[in-house]
Amino acid sequence: MKVGGLDYRTIWMENNAVFFIEQNLLPFEFRIAKVTSYAGCCDAIRDMSIRGAGAIGAMAGFAMALAFTEAPVKDLMEFVRKAKAEIESTRPTARNLFYAVEKVFGAGIRLESEAMTEARSIADKDAMDSKAIGEVGNALIRDGYSILTHCNAGWLAFVDYGTALSPIYLAHESGKQVFVYVDETRPRSQGARLTAWELHNSGIPHAVIPDNAAAHLMSRGKISLVITGADRIAANGDTANKIGTLEKAIAAREFDIPFYIAAPSSTFDLQCKSGDDIIIENRNEEEVLYQEGADKEGNLHRIRVCSPGSHAINPAFDVTPARFITGIITEKGVIEPTEISIRNTINH
Amino acid sequence: MKVGGLDYRTIWMENNAVFFIEQNLLPFEFRIAKVTSYAGCCDAIRDMSIRGAGAIGAMAGFAMALAFTEAPVKDLMEFVRKAKAEIESTRPTARNLFYAVEKVFGAGIRLESEAMTEARSIADKDAMDSKAIGEVGNALIRDGYSILTHCNAGWLAFVDYGTALSPIYLAHESGKQVFVYVDETRPRSQGARLTAWELHNSGIPHAVIPDNAAAHLMSRGKISLVITGADRIAANGDTANKIGTLEKAIAAREFDIPFYIAAPSSTFDLQCKSGDDIIIENRNEEEVLYQEGADKEGNLHRIRVCSPGSHAINPAFDVTPARFITGIITEKGVIEPTEISIRNTINH
Repeated sequence: MKVGGLDYRTIWMENNAVFFIEQNLLPFEFRIAKVTSYAGCCDAIRDMSIRGAGAIGAMAGFAMALAFTEAPVKDLMEFVRKAKAEIESTRPTARNLFYAVEKVFGAGIRLESEAMTEARSIADKDAMDSKAIGEVGNALIRDGYSILTHCNAGWLAFVDYGTALSPIYLAHESGKQVFVYVDETRPRSQGARLTAWELHNSGIPHAVIPDNAAAHLMSRGKISLVITGADRIAANGDTANKIGTLEKAIAAREFDIPFYIAAPSSTFDLQCKSGDDIIIENRNEEEVLYQEGADKEGNLHRIRVCSPGSHAINPAFDVTPARFITGIITEKGVIEPTEISIRNTINH
Repeated sequence: MKVGGLDYRTIWMENNAVFFIEQNLLPFEFRIAKVTSYAGCCDAIRDMSIRGAGAIGAMAGFAMALAFTEAPVKDLMEFVRKAKAEIESTRPTARNLFYAVEKVFGAGIRLESEAMTEARSIADKDAMDSKAIGEVGNALIRDGYSILTHCNAGWLAFVDYGTALSPIYLAHESGKQVFVYVDETRPRSQGARLTAWELHNSGIPHAVIPDNAAAHLMSRGKISLVITGADRIAANGDTANKIGTLEKAIAAREFDIPFYIAAPSSTFDLQCKSGDDIIIENRNEEEVLYQEGADKEGNLHRIRVCSPGSHAINPAFDVTPARFITGIITEKGVIEPTEISIRNTINH
């Protein structure tokens, strides 16, 4: 996507250096960071300078490829095995990360120079799949639509285009008038911080709303369509995504508003029979008790927004049952949640 | 309620001075403020040092009574009429304020010394009605219940006890084990700031949750009952309350969880036939774009939490249709939303 008139991906490789958008500084500063070793890549994943399923996958692939270039000739296998273990330990629940590391490792074992080619190909495929999701999803968007989205499933979370926001980018590029309602998405405010930044950067009309306001706007006929991303989709179509997705899905059905999930088909996890098999991570209560932001001078502060002495509960994800999902927008087309197992049985 | 072992109301009168809890400083500081003139009362309402339907009503009554004591004998009528207009202009949409001012003004016109008696009686009735709501609501709470509440409808918003929190206080006092899930209630965070402060102060087990987490907790069987307050209840039972109430009500019905409104019967507005007649105020976007809180040293800061350049939409209330409401807990008993017009026809 363009930033300040120049084309950027979230992450890319030049010679033996990985460049990426430093996401810890957004939305208050746009800065490109550079790492030149697999250990540097690991640090960037660990400290969340890079985040989002697709972007982490691409970084992990580049990290594995760099390890092959760094390895001493006589101890190559020992070095790359150690590197693989370290990369895999950075974010132990990220599925794309393991997938990318395995693929690049396999390629490098066959022929060292293939590791870098494979890593680039993973990043390219992520961008292509994201654009394909956009093209599929764009067909669902009519001129004049107002679209609600939750959290950030935009290009910052992938290599380019993103998932939930990709159809919106392509609708905008194709000349349709769209307006986006952006859920703030407490506690980490990815909507207000990242999705709003992306849309403002691309000149797409939008407004941030408190997470509490979605059902009200639906009840007043302000929302044409809801699109969110997904962290994991079970075989029966139940979908885990950022906390709050379930509430929006229930409200959307109440007001007869189509509710779509946008995700690459790699998000389907057929090992999970249903949402009951998905474990919900409870994160640190401090994400709820404190908020980060910038003062007038642009200096960042962390302040307590909850009464001293009180504690918080902070489930990171929820599971939206398939019955609330109108369709899943994938790079291969829109499918109904109930079709997942059938499609995958046929495909494999 | 007790604070630090001493009994407090939110607002009270001693001689010709009004004392009240300075709510702009909560939850980071507990301080009692004092005003001795009707103009001082008006300032406190305007700058929201006192907030909440019942507490504002009590302050307005005291303000009107003070005006009678301040008025010069020869221009009494002119003075009190001017004072009445000024008090009424402080928060033009607050129904309790107009009710209190009218009653105290009428009493003062009949007999000057009656103004103060009437003002005290309004504050006392608010506290009594709130306690009665608690007794009625306590009967709905079983030992071991987990209760979800939204925004702040506690004693700070009234003279004592409050509405939604009153049944919880009485359940706790009567020895029942209860746990309260407190919606943060963005954008103004009255849940995290005021409800959490009240519950912590009273030693009632609770946790603040992001507004996004309510449906998830319901889906996992964590919520026994929902109780919220109300700003206005239409003749058909449709209820206006803080933004987000509608989303919780829809989710509660989906998971078969009883959803109660707690409000004094003065909240019924039979002039409103249905929720369609209730106008929803859109407040300043800055409430969404910025957050206030305290740093480690307890100094207050206001920081931007939304991407620079983006705007926000900030509807202050929503309307929950009567079909989502299990019952309305009033000082006279629990009634079904559909019974409102019938009951009022019989009573009047």
